[in-house]
Amino acid sequence: MTTTTDALQQVRKAGRRVAILETEQKNACLRRLAEDLRQALPEILEANAMDLEAAAEAGVNGPKLDRLRLDAAKIEAMAAGVEQVAGLPDPVLAETVNRTLDNGLQVRRVRTPIGVIMMIYEARPNVTVDAFALCFKSGNACILKGGKEASRSNTKLRDLIVAALTRDGLPAEAITLITGSDREELKELLRRDDVIDLVIPRGGEPLIRFVHEHSRIPTVQHFHGVCHLFVDASADLEQALDVCVNAKTSAPATCNSAEAVLVHLEIAPVFIPALCERMAAAGVEVRGDAATVQLAPGTRPATDADWGTEFLDRIVAVRVVDDLDGAIEHIERFGSDHTEVILTRDPNHAERFTREVQASCTLVNASTRFNDGFQLGLGAEIGISTSKVHAFGPMGLEELTVQRYVVQGNGHTR
Amino acid sequence: MTTTTDALQQVRKAGRRVAILETEQKNACLRRLAEDLRQALPEILEANAMDLEAAAEAGVNGPKLDRLRLDAAKIEAMAAGVEQVAGLPDPVLAETVNRTLDNGLQVRRVRTPIGVIMMIYEARPNVTVDAFALCFKSGNACILKGGKEASRSNTKLRDLIVAALTRDGLPAEAITLITGSDREELKELLRRDDVIDLVIPRGGEPLIRFVHEHSRIPTVQHFHGVCHLFVDASADLEQALDVCVNAKTSAPATCNSAEAVLVHLEIAPVFIPALCERMAAAGVEVRGDAATVQLAPGTRPATDADWGTEFLDRIVAVRVVDDLDGAIEHIERFGSDHTEVILTRDPNHAERFTREVQASCTLVNASTRFNDGFQLGLGAEIGISTSKVHAFGPMGLEELTVQRYVVQGNGHTR
Repeated sequence: MTTTTDALQQVRKAGRRVAILETEQKNACLRRLAEDLRQALPEILEANAMDLEAAAEAGVNGPKLDRLRLDAAKIEAMAAGVEQVAGLPDPVLAETVNRTLDNGLQVRRVRTPIGVIMMIYEARPNVTVDAFALCFKSGNACILKGGKEASRSNTKLRDLIVAALTRDGLPAEAITLITGSDREELKELLRRDDVIDLVIPRGGEPLIRFVHEHSRIPTVQHFHGVCHLFVDASADLEQALDVCVNAKTSAPATCNSAEAVLVHLEIAPVFIPALCERMAAAGVEVRGDAATVQLAPGTRPATDADWGTEFLDRIVAVRVVDDLDGAIEHIERFGSDHTEVILTRDPNHAERFTREVQASCTLVNASTRFNDGFQLGLGAEIGISTSKVHAFGPMGLEELTVQRYVVQGNGHTR
Repeated sequence: MTTTTDALQQVRKAGRRVAILETEQKNACLRRLAEDLRQALPEILEANAMDLEAAAEAGVNGPKLDRLRLDAAKIEAMAAGVEQVAGLPDPVLAETVNRTLDNGLQVRRVRTPIGVIMMIYEARPNVTVDAFALCFKSGNACILKGGKEASRSNTKLRDLIVAALTRDGLPAEAITLITGSDREELKELLRRDDVIDLVIPRGGEPLIRFVHEHSRIPTVQHFHGVCHLFVDASADLEQALDVCVNAKTSAPATCNSAEAVLVHLEIAPVFIPALCERMAAAGVEVRGDAATVQLAPGTRPATDADWGTEFLDRIVAVRVVDDLDGAIEHIERFGSDHTEVILTRDPNHAERFTREVQASCTLVNASTRFNDGFQLGLGAEIGISTSKVHAFGPMGLEELTVQRYVVQGNGHTR
């Protein structure tokens, strides 16, 4: 139904209205939505319980079930997130250039909403609220297609959002939720470049492939994070151990957790045994190359498939490399342009690494886990883009806009 | 041949090398290329003459043949353009954010090349040189598919570029020229999102459709300009006449020329007859709505097809609208998000127009013709994007990069 031309034209129209709302109108609506979410806690949990039951019956388990599950703390975090977005500066009409040319033309560049954004994501109900809040604050209408396992939770959340919008006289079509998993419906939507301006697929290989295959609309993908840490010969080894363990274990199922550690040959005899011990103590399975297995006997040997794999689990691949060039080559081949770390005390190596490795975030002597909108001081984000187009890295309010020119003349002709 | 995996891998590798060149290496190569272009004038003209002959035989004529034609002045402009790009600031590694967070993390955001950019454009040989210079200076490798009518001219220019690159020990694969018009080859390239990062189609409806239909790669389109001028009731009418005539006639075949004038009802009785007279004197055919025809008898009546048409010729559509809202509605319906002008002395109307009409460039009391990289003080550009993603409006060196984060810590963990 949402794919009928009429319904989509309503979304486009809603986008135009949201685009020109005053900041205070948007913020007031978001703040009341946060209150509504808190008030509706029992109903949200009830809807979520039905989703969880159906998912469990369908055999869903592990991290996937965890991501689907809501509880009081997660709902409070959702509400607080919406309030936080209300508190962020409005990107719309923010000036990024303002200059007067010699001929007297005043040239301004201002941020402007993209229009209608379609986001396709996994069964995580909190993303529904986050994505709406960010799209709405940045002046866009959104079409949200969450994983079908979350359909009841998402529908409840959508109803709360629509109620908040319409109570303020704002168009309900600022949010469209698609709960089904009808690939034909999705294909049809992906052809509607007359109505949808940007598609953000967030998920695994099959989804990303499907979208690239069928979309006529520009896409910014949030694909996987195969993140590496390179421990250079000059690294502070104690610090490096802490950072490696943190990068792997603080949230193994997130895209910015580390999947592999590359160790400089010179320090491998000291560092590898210590690393394997610390990882084991943290419940992490190490899969090592031949040199690693030799230095830390009993380590499980890595297979070819382990390099470039996003484990999203307590598993880490470890490999010895000859030098900085070896590390850069490995990352070039197996990395995913997401997050890459060098641990070093050599400023020249830090400089070369951060210059040559052109991932969305490279870090020197810090955990991969800092590639995150909040941690980088940018505020809330809709995800981490791995496309080298439009947005690369954390995608927040600014990245949900584009820039346009506004020029003031006085009868100027050419 | 270019679409073989091996050849494309060489392009990707070349992109990586170009990405990390020092500014001075790039500028020196460009400056020598400019000299080479001047030296090779007779050979370029010879190749172009063959293209022109073949095109004329194939029945090509009018503006299309003009765009294909090179002469000494155009070749000098090409060389000067390359020198101008050499003189522009290098966008690569330019910092757009640099802040230290409370926890001591230093967060920098820097511009970084996109990687491999494919541009598809009409038979205009000068675009080949411009596009290479801009892609190279911004650290990208490029795949250029120019119109097949320009194949001999483009091949000659490509040879000169490759000679300049290899003389400096730089990879020839920084430029790949595709001269054929094999749609199957193009389809195959459009699927290679493993190698190509961005596609820029520049041209008419069939090309844009074809690319959107078959591309797996993010696209930024340079589509048509259906640009309007709205003459408000409070406009300075003499000034408005000058601007309208300039917007239509100073370069009718360009995307930023005006296609329609919307006139406020209140001033129509005075303005329309004067406008029709001035346009006629400038050799422009007016196609008017009923009110226009009534006010300026003898004017050719517009048909439905005239609204929203990019004439690219000495033709202009003229319509009377009730008020500012009527003008905004017309532009919303028929505009192409390219360039829109209001002529007014009412600052509130200027404010509303530039806020609500979200084209890539809106202008107050100035000609549409100023939506151009040079005219806006931005330097050389590869074209005007009408996509509301990545770049919107003139696409220069900055728009051929994306931004990434570089973070310095001191053993930071989360």
